[in-house]
Amino acid sequence: MSLSEKARKELRRLLGDRLLEAESDCLVYAYDASGRTYLPEAVALPQNTEEVSRILALSYEEEFPVIPRGAGTATTGAPLAARGGLVVAFTLMDRILEINAEDLVAVVEPGVVNGRFKEKLARRGLFYPPDPASYRFSTIGGNVATCAGGPRGLKYGVTRDYVLALEAVLPGGEVLPLGTRTLKGVVGYDLTRLLVGSEGTLAVITKITLKVLPLPPARATVAAGFGSEEEALASLNEVLSGGLLPAAAEFMDEVTLTATGALEPEIKGLLLLEFDGLDSTVKEEVEKALEILDSRTRFLKVASGETAETLWEVRRAISPALKKLGTRRIADDIVLPRSKLSVFVREVRALSKDFGLRVACFGHAGDGNLHVNILFDEEKEGAESLRERILSLVLSLSGTISGEHGIGLTKRAYLPWEIPPRALSLMREIKKVFDPKGLLNPGKIF
Amino acid sequence: MSLSEKARKELRRLLGDRLLEAESDCLVYAYDASGRTYLPEAVALPQNTEEVSRILALSYEEEFPVIPRGAGTATTGAPLAARGGLVVAFTLMDRILEINAEDLVAVVEPGVVNGRFKEKLARRGLFYPPDPASYRFSTIGGNVATCAGGPRGLKYGVTRDYVLALEAVLPGGEVLPLGTRTLKGVVGYDLTRLLVGSEGTLAVITKITLKVLPLPPARATVAAGFGSEEEALASLNEVLSGGLLPAAAEFMDEVTLTATGALEPEIKGLLLLEFDGLDSTVKEEVEKALEILDSRTRFLKVASGETAETLWEVRRAISPALKKLGTRRIADDIVLPRSKLSVFVREVRALSKDFGLRVACFGHAGDGNLHVNILFDEEKEGAESLRERILSLVLSLSGTISGEHGIGLTKRAYLPWEIPPRALSLMREIKKVFDPKGLLNPGKIF
Repeated sequence: MSLSEKARKELRRLLGDRLLEAESDCLVYAYDASGRTYLPEAVALPQNTEEVSRILALSYEEEFPVIPRGAGTATTGAPLAARGGLVVAFTLMDRILEINAEDLVAVVEPGVVNGRFKEKLARRGLFYPPDPASYRFSTIGGNVATCAGGPRGLKYGVTRDYVLALEAVLPGGEVLPLGTRTLKGVVGYDLTRLLVGSEGTLAVITKITLKVLPLPPARATVAAGFGSEEEALASLNEVLSGGLLPAAAEFMDEVTLTATGALEPEIKGLLLLEFDGLDSTVKEEVEKALEILDSRTRFLKVASGETAETLWEVRRAISPALKKLGTRRIADDIVLPRSKLSVFVREVRALSKDFGLRVACFGHAGDGNLHVNILFDEEKEGAESLRERILSLVLSLSGTISGEHGIGLTKRAYLPWEIPPRALSLMREIKKVFDPKGLLNPGKIF
Repeated sequence: MSLSEKARKELRRLLGDRLLEAESDCLVYAYDASGRTYLPEAVALPQNTEEVSRILALSYEEEFPVIPRGAGTATTGAPLAARGGLVVAFTLMDRILEINAEDLVAVVEPGVVNGRFKEKLARRGLFYPPDPASYRFSTIGGNVATCAGGPRGLKYGVTRDYVLALEAVLPGGEVLPLGTRTLKGVVGYDLTRLLVGSEGTLAVITKITLKVLPLPPARATVAAGFGSEEEALASLNEVLSGGLLPAAAEFMDEVTLTATGALEPEIKGLLLLEFDGLDSTVKEEVEKALEILDSRTRFLKVASGETAETLWEVRRAISPALKKLGTRRIADDIVLPRSKLSVFVREVRALSKDFGLRVACFGHAGDGNLHVNILFDEEKEGAESLRERILSLVLSLSGTISGEHGIGLTKRAYLPWEIPPRALSLMREIKKVFDPKGLLNPGKIF
């Protein structure tokens, strides 16, 4: 399966200079954040659904793979041309088609960057919660393809909770409207949400109708430092059991804090809690949180506005900071039932000692979603074994091996660890229903 | 396809007196709220997953239909044995298996009644928002099968937003765990949510893992009566555009109010807004709502606790009250983008006049979900034509023909009005992937 000369000719006719064929041009689309590279045979930059439809019709006739791509921030290789073929990048399909405050609905093209969308909404007093760490760069199309999450998952859910309807192009080129513009809808099977998180393997999304919310007028952050990781996690559980529902509840372990160097060394576990809502709500929630946290913390700070931003900078600085502790890393985004987080972190600590490798655990502890980074320089093999031990541990604690990054290329080997054979075969058969020739993003997930 | 003597024998051996075969016993399971009746060939009352698995293995061997059934509150005929076969009723699988306040997760069997579940949770300070009108009787299994909604859809979403994981039995008897116990999870295709709303046509659900929330400590209801339906709906939009997000926002039109007789005749449109959250939040939201509503209303009341309940009694009394205006009715649960509600109600009024038939519109206007009841005594034909006009109107206004009841038997004819042919064929093929012999709830949806 590769791009025939006939296919190239047709694509040139269709797209003109929006078909990139020079190696130097294609190289830009050979990467994502997984560190892997696959040079695409060519790159298409369609401007509208009609062009995407024609590309998929041609792919079907000429049997070449099509790999849809947003901003390439995936950590799993999902947007890479691992088996050759044409990358379809949505750079030029980046229009916000509608923001409707009355219906609390917005319609966007897949290339719209999450952060830009958030800004436009904020100016209208509206709010789109899903906020993957990459939100300043990543696209809504990519977010939908991976069901992206972020810190706000705890209170606000993830991307799938906001996707109301999709326009999708099937292999062969047929354009399908799926779902409804309304908050409720139960007419037939839920194909809309089947596409969410399917990593571009079932259809190519060309339009996205999203639920949006009124922008909460107030927002405040509580930073709480503890003498141990266990105390931090136990305190988080107390806050949540106290009936409080922060918009975000982030945790940083000792390794992470050491790397960032932002706090005194006696602080071995940090919580960042963000509360949002009406003024009075935020005030009451912050007070209640402080009451709960006060007795245990060694460091406690409340901030809003720009001061809060500086607290969140610590959180955002983690990924670059971790480079100090290892030039290479294996990064997973596991999720656990929250009650299992303490056990998990303790066991990871023990495994880390056994393997003689540093492991940083940080992230969205509020919804159980931790980023686990194994840091190393050369010991690749030991690191891979450690990863397998950690993933086994996650599954033994009723967790999942990916909360927001997805499977792509890099986690395919572990898919059968979590999904039973019959469920996997159902998924493969569903793949065949949508994509009988296996042309859409081949080699991903399965 | 019907129950062979061999199948009956095996079922008797498996279930003993929990296999009902006498006509008088089966008759109880021949009904739902659609008014249609189909006598099942037999009724099974399994006690556990193992028995469900054996029933489905036997169904596969002997090729008899299996119709899963909760409390039979469906309005669409979905739980009826329309093509014969065995009704599997979950009456005895009604255990709440786990309520975990720390993880904010609960695990239930499908026969658990929504209202009983809510009560148990409330005692633990927890909250499961989906609240179909039938919640005192309907089961979580049935709620999942239809993706049930209710008034709280506006703020809290619908059943699919709470289903984290399922145990499901496939035709043939294989038991599959699907989804994860965690709030996030993107490993493989989302089969969990594919089953939500699939009306028992893909697999039989035997265990349900649900997300639950902290119970909001405060709650207040605002009732606002207006001189016209338009004013009521316009005011609702103002409240929501003002950044307020009530837990529920119900609307009653003039016909509905006349039937209930609860208010003076000058009140031609009523809003019931429920706010929930922390004390201070509820207070602030109610104040803001009153400010917005005050200028237009002819009637304005705030209540909490039992007094609020009396306000909601008006809402709950609608269905029986409407009988005064017609011994028969055709009831739909359409959804519109909220901005289209006013136009819709006005057009329905005009159609109602043209056809000389009373139409009551009431329900969850906050999320655009209106119950449209055509009331009549004998004029069945005119009523059916009017219904078709109304459904066409809904689709022309970017709405959907069902927000929470589903398709079942009674709306099958209208499915192709909303779903394009290729999407329908994808759905049929997915059905075949799960149920190649067409044994599960045959004749429903398609």
